[in-house]
Amino acid sequence: MQSIEKIVLIGSGNVATELAVIFIQKGLKIVQVYSPNLKNAELLASASGCDATNILLDIREDADLYIIAIKDDAISELNTGLRLPGKIVVHTSGSAGLNAIQNISDKTGVFYPLQTFTKNRQLDWKNIPVILESSDASSLESLKSLAGSITDSVFEINSENRKKLHLAAVFASNFINHILGQSKGILGEDIPFNILQPLVNETVSKAFELGPDQSQTGPAKRRDMKTIEAHIELLKSFPEAEKTYRMFTDFIIRKYKDPGTND
Amino acid sequence: MQSIEKIVLIGSGNVATELAVIFIQKGLKIVQVYSPNLKNAELLASASGCDATNILLDIREDADLYIIAIKDDAISELNTGLRLPGKIVVHTSGSAGLNAIQNISDKTGVFYPLQTFTKNRQLDWKNIPVILESSDASSLESLKSLAGSITDSVFEINSENRKKLHLAAVFASNFINHILGQSKGILGEDIPFNILQPLVNETVSKAFELGPDQSQTGPAKRRDMKTIEAHIELLKSFPEAEKTYRMFTDFIIRKYKDPGTND
Repeated sequence: MQSIEKIVLIGSGNVATELAVIFIQKGLKIVQVYSPNLKNAELLASASGCDATNILLDIREDADLYIIAIKDDAISELNTGLRLPGKIVVHTSGSAGLNAIQNISDKTGVFYPLQTFTKNRQLDWKNIPVILESSDASSLESLKSLAGSITDSVFEINSENRKKLHLAAVFASNFINHILGQSKGILGEDIPFNILQPLVNETVSKAFELGPDQSQTGPAKRRDMKTIEAHIELLKSFPEAEKTYRMFTDFIIRKYKDPGTND
Repeated sequence: MQSIEKIVLIGSGNVATELAVIFIQKGLKIVQVYSPNLKNAELLASASGCDATNILLDIREDADLYIIAIKDDAISELNTGLRLPGKIVVHTSGSAGLNAIQNISDKTGVFYPLQTFTKNRQLDWKNIPVILESSDASSLESLKSLAGSITDSVFEINSENRKKLHLAAVFASNFINHILGQSKGILGEDIPFNILQPLVNETVSKAFELGPDQSQTGPAKRRDMKTIEAHIELLKSFPEAEKTYRMFTDFIIRKYKDPGTND
């Protein structure tokens, strides 16, 4: 097993930036940052104490690991234009297959941190699941060791299941965030948004402890039609939230034949 | 201001039960439990060390506070059949107006704990917002003092804004829980649901710290059509989740004209 010390980052967005921060904290070396946008490459490179380039052919060949952290749409260009024979090359995408980078090297992998990244937020990596996959057992061991140095939560999951996981994460993160935006819109200016935080925290804890099916509460679950009608009336000036309300209320009513006694 | 020591609970569901637990912990006395279902009333009464009744006329008249914690649909029956002149009477509903109990007493109020209650879960009341409203200043002071004895988070909010808050809470709790159920369904049996918990926790923290508009990430925000199409393909066997995916993706794409650089 090859141990990983020197890393080239291909990409300079939020994922590349957060990876640079945690790797440097753990004593690893970022030796180069590539981005088609030289300014972005230079920003991250200077924070990482290394060189930047926007030219594929100038990517150094003496690193132990090449991490491709760019939009899925741009990965195929690299697969066409980049060759790093004998090097371990991984991408960080939840939805791209392992084969998306198969022309770059014969030692490929996936290093997918399951988290939502926004610049300048302190993250506790210890709990962030890192999802691994690799073309060969030896690279997998190297990646396991690297992942294990930043988190306690390392999973080996194949491309098919990783795609499902990424899709589930869109619901659990992007759509939940959007729903919170709808809540904030309904509250308006007079009611502080933060008043909802203890409720949301308990909702999430409960869903993971008991399972969402056992945790469901609310007017739709109770089939409290009087409240549902009053809510729809209140939503007249929020057409998007009204659509959401009608759809989810319908889903929940149909799901729970026995309304139960929750709430 | 009248101080509250003796409480009659009208209702025996999750809210009544959780209130009994915390009030007794704080040294208050539950002196009676009423429920139209005598067995349910007896269960909660015996846990609270008091009597039970299922007859409205047998409700004691010597308590300081009467808390109506029942379904909204059933409140109007009490407003017709129950008279407690001179007594402070509150309901715990997010959506019923203060006037829903106006015939019962001339000292009415609302004592609405903004939380999702499920039997047998330990709750940290200190952070749970309790939303108050009252017909008169003196009762309001009594309720403030009572609420302040169980939580650090006491708000006075009128009926109109409380209804908005309750509606926003349906989105932030009931709909978020349902979305988590959709995520779990997509993961299936092979991928553990708990793998999503750190992502959801960070999503929620970020939304409350930065605001949901500043926190949005994901393929819809990035207009990553290749990923979106692959996701819709994956959702073929999940018709409900597919509907949700299409609707939220559409909402998010329309909301963010500038896709930004998040993720």
